[in-house]
Amino acid sequence: MRILIDGMGGDYAPQEIVKGAVKAAAEIDDIIVILGPEDLIREQLDVCRWKGSNIEIMNATEVISNDETPAMSVRKKKDSTIVKGMNMIKNGEGDVLISGGSTGALLAAGLVVLGRLKGIKRPAIAAWFPALAEGGSTLLLDCGANVEAKPEYVYQNGIMGSIFVRAIKGIEEPSVKLLNIGAEAGKGDELHKEAFRMLSDADINFVGNIEGRDVIFGGCDIVVTDGFSGNIFLKSSEGMSLAIMGQFKKKLTEGVVAKAGAMLAYSKIKEIKKVFDYSDVGAAPILGLKGAVLKMHGNSTETEVYYAIKKAIPYVNNDVTGMIAEAVSRNNVLSAKKETGGDEEDK
Amino acid sequence: MRILIDGMGGDYAPQEIVKGAVKAAAEIDDIIVILGPEDLIREQLDVCRWKGSNIEIMNATEVISNDETPAMSVRKKKDSTIVKGMNMIKNGEGDVLISGGSTGALLAAGLVVLGRLKGIKRPAIAAWFPALAEGGSTLLLDCGANVEAKPEYVYQNGIMGSIFVRAIKGIEEPSVKLLNIGAEAGKGDELHKEAFRMLSDADINFVGNIEGRDVIFGGCDIVVTDGFSGNIFLKSSEGMSLAIMGQFKKKLTEGVVAKAGAMLAYSKIKEIKKVFDYSDVGAAPILGLKGAVLKMHGNSTETEVYYAIKKAIPYVNNDVTGMIAEAVSRNNVLSAKKETGGDEEDK
Repeated sequence: MRILIDGMGGDYAPQEIVKGAVKAAAEIDDIIVILGPEDLIREQLDVCRWKGSNIEIMNATEVISNDETPAMSVRKKKDSTIVKGMNMIKNGEGDVLISGGSTGALLAAGLVVLGRLKGIKRPAIAAWFPALAEGGSTLLLDCGANVEAKPEYVYQNGIMGSIFVRAIKGIEEPSVKLLNIGAEAGKGDELHKEAFRMLSDADINFVGNIEGRDVIFGGCDIVVTDGFSGNIFLKSSEGMSLAIMGQFKKKLTEGVVAKAGAMLAYSKIKEIKKVFDYSDVGAAPILGLKGAVLKMHGNSTETEVYYAIKKAIPYVNNDVTGMIAEAVSRNNVLSAKKETGGDEEDK
Repeated sequence: MRILIDGMGGDYAPQEIVKGAVKAAAEIDDIIVILGPEDLIREQLDVCRWKGSNIEIMNATEVISNDETPAMSVRKKKDSTIVKGMNMIKNGEGDVLISGGSTGALLAAGLVVLGRLKGIKRPAIAAWFPALAEGGSTLLLDCGANVEAKPEYVYQNGIMGSIFVRAIKGIEEPSVKLLNIGAEAGKGDELHKEAFRMLSDADINFVGNIEGRDVIFGGCDIVVTDGFSGNIFLKSSEGMSLAIMGQFKKKLTEGVVAKAGAMLAYSKIKEIKKVFDYSDVGAAPILGLKGAVLKMHGNSTETEVYYAIKKAIPYVNNDVTGMIAEAVSRNNVLSAKKETGGDEEDK
């Protein structure tokens, strides 16, 4: 397997990307290809004292930043890490592309270079969210690939998410809930009411609405949402988590007594941090593209990069992309919509 | 001042409502009117050994539950605590109505009995959200009054919120941000892009977008949003807060060493809980109605009821309703839209 990683994507690139790649490469037989300016990446590999043989460099001289318009930069910067990586996936020179760079550019390049799977209206970003109940994590999608929402997209998220969780976790009929402003059926705006109806009719284990408050406590395998709400949900939760953990860190180092207390409770506090820690879940797949593309958090460091690479392997081995393509072609509702030209609108 | 409180609204009614009312009544000169079945409320007052003279009971024999369709139950249950309370506000027999009951019923009754202020398209629920930066709280609206979103509603939320924060906090030009999926201008779906443009042109201190992650860290006085996103934001944040605090409570009582540590750090842990504690902020006003209506959380207990009553007093004294009415009539954009019949659609 050839795992491509964007050496220039994210806040701590290229240093942390290369460090994470070196750490992962020492444990696997697969080849890791780092995309970026050759000299710069080689320099970082030297810093890490890399002597192995399963890391390659693919020279890519351009970088697309978060401030650029995705569509335009993808068209113009042919030698950027993202566009070059996407072309390598298309040409069979890589099995999966991982990037911590601009989500917009990654999506735009994915759509332009790889294209959508037949029958899929919009790709979706699927991220793991910590869950306190057994199971330990819930798949949330869409986390912000599509900001303009339609019931069909939310419905397709239910199908893609079900296939993904079945492949990765081995759960035969993963349960799906719809993120909504009330738990009862009939809640929400027209978009979510219609999405509820479509999900109810779908050949998946759809079990109803879930409120934002309840996701963290677990209770279902997949939460589907439109990209706008999903993004608000994910970032609000993250903000609150960061704020509370930050307060504990600050307050428990104020004064000798509290410090002593925190030291005694240290192992337990570490356990709590672990529960809400996202660093080992791996990168978030962009489902619905004709190829395996994973999005890392922009602030990823060595640990996150390491896990992104390690978790990419079962993702490719399980051929999630192929499974989604197959399920969609089997699914009458999607095919019917496809034949009426329903997925042509964003071309 | 006559403060009306729904004795039957919320998970712990009537016991906790009456307890909170008794606690508040002992500290104020204003009259508190508890709505509910007379015998039941009197019984609870006896349990609290109430001997004062500033609590009255208004007999209301019906209750609207959360499971009922708001519009229909408001039409049918004329003797419900919510409909009766709303009529008392209309007839000048009360200055403010506080309820922990069904949000939908409260809104429907507000619209039917009181009606909207001239020029206001939709009322909005405005709640205080904790903020770590100086100031200590951010006003968030709409928190779920309107699930069907339009840019004009979000824009009016900016105006109503500015008037409210000016009145309550005395900030001359409170800063307003728009909850969005990115901080840069031009982010979001069409609805939020248009809302951004309208807010930019408004005669308020609008300073741009804010992401869900950043609200808790403060940095602005008011965050405006559509009701769907606002509800998702609020409940996600609340869920994460409950989950983390719950984990600390659980883990720090596991084993003697951690327990000892937690005891040493006790005062600091209490300080942290205080930062994220919502119980003393008071109830959330429904802005835009022709009368003062406050929504308490459904799980309110004595403390929340007590603060809801205490904080209702400056709310009424500052005549927020009158100020919004005046500002809207002065505002050309709103008036223009009003004249074209733009606010007639939900009649």
